[in-house]
Amino acid sequence: MLLEAVYHRPKDNYAYACTDREIHIRIRTKKNDVRKVALLHGDPYQWEQGKWIYASAEMVQTGSDQLFDYWFASIEPPFRRLRYGFLLEDEQESHFYGDRGFLPGPTNDVGDYFCFPFLNSADVFKAPAWVKDTVWYQIFPERFANGNKEWDPDGTLPWGSTDPKPDNFFGGDLQGVIDGIPYLKELGITGIYFTPIFKAHSNHKYDTIDYFELDPQFGNKDTLKELVNACHDNGIKVMLDAVFNHSGLYFAQFQDVLENGERSVYKDWFHIREFPLRKEPLPNYDTFAFEPSMPKLNTENPEVREYLLEAGRYWIKEFDIDGWRLDVANEVDHSFWREFRKETKAIKPDLYILGEIWHDSMPWLRGDQFDAVMNYPFTTNILNLFAKESIGPRQFVESMTQVVHMYPKNVMEAAFNLVGSHDTPRILTECGDNKEKVKQIFTIMLTFIGSPCIYYGDEIGMTGGADPGCRKCMEWDSSEQDRDLFSHIQKLVSLRKKHRLLANEGTFTFLPVEMNEDCIAYTKSDGDKTCLVVLNTTDKKTVYPLPFNLKGRKITDIWLDDEFAADTDDLGVELEPFSFSILQF
Amino acid sequence: MLLEAVYHRPKDNYAYACTDREIHIRIRTKKNDVRKVALLHGDPYQWEQGKWIYASAEMVQTGSDQLFDYWFASIEPPFRRLRYGFLLEDEQESHFYGDRGFLPGPTNDVGDYFCFPFLNSADVFKAPAWVKDTVWYQIFPERFANGNKEWDPDGTLPWGSTDPKPDNFFGGDLQGVIDGIPYLKELGITGIYFTPIFKAHSNHKYDTIDYFELDPQFGNKDTLKELVNACHDNGIKVMLDAVFNHSGLYFAQFQDVLENGERSVYKDWFHIREFPLRKEPLPNYDTFAFEPSMPKLNTENPEVREYLLEAGRYWIKEFDIDGWRLDVANEVDHSFWREFRKETKAIKPDLYILGEIWHDSMPWLRGDQFDAVMNYPFTTNILNLFAKESIGPRQFVESMTQVVHMYPKNVMEAAFNLVGSHDTPRILTECGDNKEKVKQIFTIMLTFIGSPCIYYGDEIGMTGGADPGCRKCMEWDSSEQDRDLFSHIQKLVSLRKKHRLLANEGTFTFLPVEMNEDCIAYTKSDGDKTCLVVLNTTDKKTVYPLPFNLKGRKITDIWLDDEFAADTDDLGVELEPFSFSILQF
Repeated sequence: MLLEAVYHRPKDNYAYACTDREIHIRIRTKKNDVRKVALLHGDPYQWEQGKWIYASAEMVQTGSDQLFDYWFASIEPPFRRLRYGFLLEDEQESHFYGDRGFLPGPTNDVGDYFCFPFLNSADVFKAPAWVKDTVWYQIFPERFANGNKEWDPDGTLPWGSTDPKPDNFFGGDLQGVIDGIPYLKELGITGIYFTPIFKAHSNHKYDTIDYFELDPQFGNKDTLKELVNACHDNGIKVMLDAVFNHSGLYFAQFQDVLENGERSVYKDWFHIREFPLRKEPLPNYDTFAFEPSMPKLNTENPEVREYLLEAGRYWIKEFDIDGWRLDVANEVDHSFWREFRKETKAIKPDLYILGEIWHDSMPWLRGDQFDAVMNYPFTTNILNLFAKESIGPRQFVESMTQVVHMYPKNVMEAAFNLVGSHDTPRILTECGDNKEKVKQIFTIMLTFIGSPCIYYGDEIGMTGGADPGCRKCMEWDSSEQDRDLFSHIQKLVSLRKKHRLLANEGTFTFLPVEMNEDCIAYTKSDGDKTCLVVLNTTDKKTVYPLPFNLKGRKITDIWLDDEFAADTDDLGVELEPFSFSILQF
Repeated sequence: MLLEAVYHRPKDNYAYACTDREIHIRIRTKKNDVRKVALLHGDPYQWEQGKWIYASAEMVQTGSDQLFDYWFASIEPPFRRLRYGFLLEDEQESHFYGDRGFLPGPTNDVGDYFCFPFLNSADVFKAPAWVKDTVWYQIFPERFANGNKEWDPDGTLPWGSTDPKPDNFFGGDLQGVIDGIPYLKELGITGIYFTPIFKAHSNHKYDTIDYFELDPQFGNKDTLKELVNACHDNGIKVMLDAVFNHSGLYFAQFQDVLENGERSVYKDWFHIREFPLRKEPLPNYDTFAFEPSMPKLNTENPEVREYLLEAGRYWIKEFDIDGWRLDVANEVDHSFWREFRKETKAIKPDLYILGEIWHDSMPWLRGDQFDAVMNYPFTTNILNLFAKESIGPRQFVESMTQVVHMYPKNVMEAAFNLVGSHDTPRILTECGDNKEKVKQIFTIMLTFIGSPCIYYGDEIGMTGGADPGCRKCMEWDSSEQDRDLFSHIQKLVSLRKKHRLLANEGTFTFLPVEMNEDCIAYTKSDGDKTCLVVLNTTDKKTVYPLPFNLKGRKITDIWLDDEFAADTDDLGVELEPFSFSILQF
């Protein structure tokens, strides 16, 4: 047995409270190395005749990536305290693994066991319940719809008349979104994520001038109230984008520093390394990247903290928004985000807090900071398989298994899954305009674990490369929209609502790639029902054998809305090139 | 190369800010498997011609445990942002390891690299600077000295007249400690850790009745003020013990619940599963262990939180204490401890917060909760080597290397190292009354990384088994004290003060056990000077070869207070059975 491959450390994704009663335990072993893992567990204080006593539970294997197998067990300790260790067995040998490392076998010394000292409800990661049922739609407000020409900034171009540029304007606004609600309802989405709408200089508005004002090109505060109400009336949640890492150049407090230098009362609002400020060759003050017009805010300054926290509170209190997406969230201190969570959740306990983090984000997802991050590792795997074709189904399943095991189950269920945004080329363009691939991608995203998000226009086949290409004006001429793609996504959204397992219920598992190397297949199961998604990722017909005892059972073809009885255990799903099937049994 | 053995995950003990400028990076590989590790690192936003650019730094191997080698590098990123990956090389192959796993070689895609997004000062783990220079002395107040007989509880027994029992009293008090300060000064300790002194029922006082009152048997608040002042005047810090996990049976609020049941206004101060309360066969309310007289406090109830936080603040504000030791700290919610840190440090920024946790404690040592935990893994290794003799020098070095790499360097430097407490048998008893072993143990503890603590009486050779045996009355008759042991420890304490490297300066490294399998040897080095501690753990003479280029250099024998010039590189230290040497060069 390869002991060096075994990994477990309490808390994070290896031992966590999934609810106020359940503790999930995972362990990692070398791939195909260990035959059986038992979780030995007990209350730290239950002793009999001077010996600590424990029970044993068999762990189940929940997946494999390139190098490792992952094992899982869920425990409900009656007194909310847990000591546990692992008994690892292969054909030849067995080892015990606990807080003091490997031992030849289990002991009755409780100190040899890992410790989950107490399941305190206050520490449990709890994303809002509504999130896992939500299908998001990301709107870049300048480019979604121009609903009120009176608000257009000077030099606004006719809608869609030319390519998007870093500095051109087409007059998209909040009225346009209000007017678009029937369209969004038709698509079926239940949440809108808006990139910033606060007063700013650029068309993307990530360079905030005033955190308490709407950008006048988008409308006024009454418009926002109307928009949020209209959304809520239509069962749509509203999430705004907060840029707390840095301000824009025209933020009054920064302008004051530029003007008054060291004498400015706002000089400690930023991280200024020396006066006078200069921008070349590199700014002598901290900025986002090396962008002189985006000075980093000093979130350790109590005044700045209070200013930003009040902004966080204000839009919830006054406008009843449902979520905050936090830009460049990873560069702001954890301590600020802990306070932000406390303050905002005090007003709206089921607020969704979403951090923009592209890399492994465990340190932000421990229950004290964010409810989710933008799941770019998910995106990367999708792109590698379908767009770059740098991996096949096997590696896709392995890498996605790694993503799924990177975080606790309850964290994954609230993850913000996306296949494109205002920061990336559009998915159809990434796929070389291959619409069948895009359909497969949405099929995966809308049946996966997590809360999926559709980038505006992707549903009607809009194209575009990296920023600014991906920020074209929304195509409202239905003859120019890909209505077939729209219908595909619309149907997936609707099925996700109808079939609980397609959304975030049950336990997600990939089926072994060995079943059919051309396919990706996964199930979600609640113990009673199982839902199977299987995709043929190739341009050849194939048959996917069903590894279940199905004889005599009723099988529902969810996608084709059909039912049949299985007359044999030896069933297979016939799949056309780039097609898929969604079954439930 | 065994890829399965490689482990790194950003933050915690693998990537952490050691100061406001330095980021420490560590990686783990299979023992003796990798020849060279380079850290490839750069600012996330520094690009040239569309490619991300990085520098390379060689990592040094800082130790090996049973299965793994550990590698280390320290980086000072000029803009406090860091992306990094590892280039691992052995004779045959090389691999790149980053945020997206293993790749054949380094890339210029920044997303392939691990991320330490920003070194925010607010998130840096910072224990008070004074802690690493402190030598603690643990006092169990009922048993240290009876300084005022008027405060004696009914039934107080003559000092040391009989064995300690779970329920007998000998009248130890705070006046006794004040009177003992000259003795403590003589020993040289610079901090006292008091087990609880608040009003309680038992002799150990872990069953608090009132968190705002001193136990009358120990004196009154003026006595405490006098004690703290006297300690401070003598350069001694004072740490008190807070029992916030549970109260005692006679805590008024719990008595109210016992009396009024469901109608009690305090019913939500505890975790009561059903009314009426019962104690048998198991309490139907949460307790410490299954002890009915120690009901667990509901720290999620804002009233309880505020009550306990006020207790935390009160003794600092009113009595100027320097530290809080937190009993059963692991069973209280993290969220409470974050608030506790914020509130108490607001009053006294250099307060020391020490959690009682016996197991791996990383989740409490991330900078937002505790400054240290009681380092029982250190204790376990000491006992295994010297007392149980279940391991030899090799396994000791391997296991201790694991302990040292379990936490960040700055966390280890503030660790509370102990070889016994009121909860364990006394160290001399553990060692079968072998004083030479005890001398070696104190030599290690007082030259190791961390803040060492001497349990009252251990310095004069007191004996005793597990509680209550380890809680005997302090022996004040100097003819009954082991003055030789006292002098040994006194000398170590004094050398630790005189020689900065013996305390917590520099970098700690074990020398390879291959040098001499009978010895334990480690160095602390600040780059300029190196201090070497070498111990012969056997009952046979031995010679320890010095693996340094020393020819022509001056060597100081710190223990013997001697100096000599090395006339050859081929030097060895002659070591008598169970002896040791402390050199500096």
